[in-house]
Amino acid sequence: MEVTDLPTTPQPAAPELEFWFDFASTYSYPAALRVEDLAVAHGVTVHWRAFLLGPIFQAQGWSDSPFNLYPAKGRYMWQDLQRLCHEHELEFHKPSHFPRNSVLAARIACAFDSAPWIGGFVRRVFTANFALDLDIADVEVITACLELLGQNPTVVMDTATSAESKAKLRARTEAADKLEIFGAPTFISDGELYWGNERLENALAKAAQASLGA
Amino acid sequence: MEVTDLPTTPQPAAPELEFWFDFASTYSYPAALRVEDLAVAHGVTVHWRAFLLGPIFQAQGWSDSPFNLYPAKGRYMWQDLQRLCHEHELEFHKPSHFPRNSVLAARIACAFDSAPWIGGFVRRVFTANFALDLDIADVEVITACLELLGQNPTVVMDTATSAESKAKLRARTEAADKLEIFGAPTFISDGELYWGNERLENALAKAAQASLGA
Repeated sequence: MEVTDLPTTPQPAAPELEFWFDFASTYSYPAALRVEDLAVAHGVTVHWRAFLLGPIFQAQGWSDSPFNLYPAKGRYMWQDLQRLCHEHELEFHKPSHFPRNSVLAARIACAFDSAPWIGGFVRRVFTANFALDLDIADVEVITACLELLGQNPTVVMDTATSAESKAKLRARTEAADKLEIFGAPTFISDGELYWGNERLENALAKAAQASLGA
Repeated sequence: MEVTDLPTTPQPAAPELEFWFDFASTYSYPAALRVEDLAVAHGVTVHWRAFLLGPIFQAQGWSDSPFNLYPAKGRYMWQDLQRLCHEHELEFHKPSHFPRNSVLAARIACAFDSAPWIGGFVRRVFTANFALDLDIADVEVITACLELLGQNPTVVMDTATSAESKAKLRARTEAADKLEIFGAPTFISDGELYWGNERLENALAKAAQASLGA
């Protein structure tokens, strides 16, 4: 028997999860605050995928959030989100305006999606929107988020609003559409879609399982 | 101190859960198969509330199931439902027609909502639709469901299709609308709405908690 005939133990692939979100999306808030800690606990790497729900909703014929277009569904969502945040021990204050314009924050999260501070930025912006009732389209609000992370807001925002970064977010949103993402949060794990905050645990379990070749 | 001044221990109210469902509704299937066993485990009584989603959807401007109107959402739902049934160890076979006409089954479940066999009937009809791929609008399919429960199909169907029973289902569906029910399954527990199969456990916990006066 040659040494090369020995069965080789395949290296398990590093488990990965794509987290697709829009900073204006209500159920993306608890998911965004939970995803990194849970992923670490499962040994899973998170890939941050900020995109814009607006064009996705427009393609479905909606000019506004379905929670505004369907008022009973909207009233339910706010009650449900409050219960959910309470359950997850997350602060929650119903935003005085919904949905907020998330383009600037999304451009930053898209342009710097591999920066070491991306997770902290995502959590700070969601907290600003859904716990502090701040306008995340306001440059001052985003400036404060970046400063708290030790980043230079001018440098980050100049980069994020360059033609290249704008094109990157457009391409990201087109990719969401091609992946048949129809809402947020959406998780992609081992090629499968999981939609909604309450599918996060299933998506992580799938990622961990897939990496073992199960 | 008079005897009547003694503080009385209030009797805890019997915990209750309203389960609102349409036999054509996909996510109502796992909820319907799970609700009675889980409720018993929580000491909660289930009130069966069959209604028709059609008029509710029409009021939202939809002439068909949103899973048919929004194809990406529909494709996701079938994949998600399959995963969910696997997780709950429920048989699943994608129905060859969706949504199926659920009026006859709903009239029976509404007319006989307090019969001792109602839970068994609900589970059999859902199983016919989502595990056996049978047409639940077919009198023969409903006949088989009733016979398996030891009921006289002719007597049950005659009662369920009387003018009174038809009016009862219409009133039930109007009541759903007044309660701001916008989809199924919906659970009502201590006056609060919970929408979706994955909210069943929360709704039951709320019912048990409310009965303790918590």
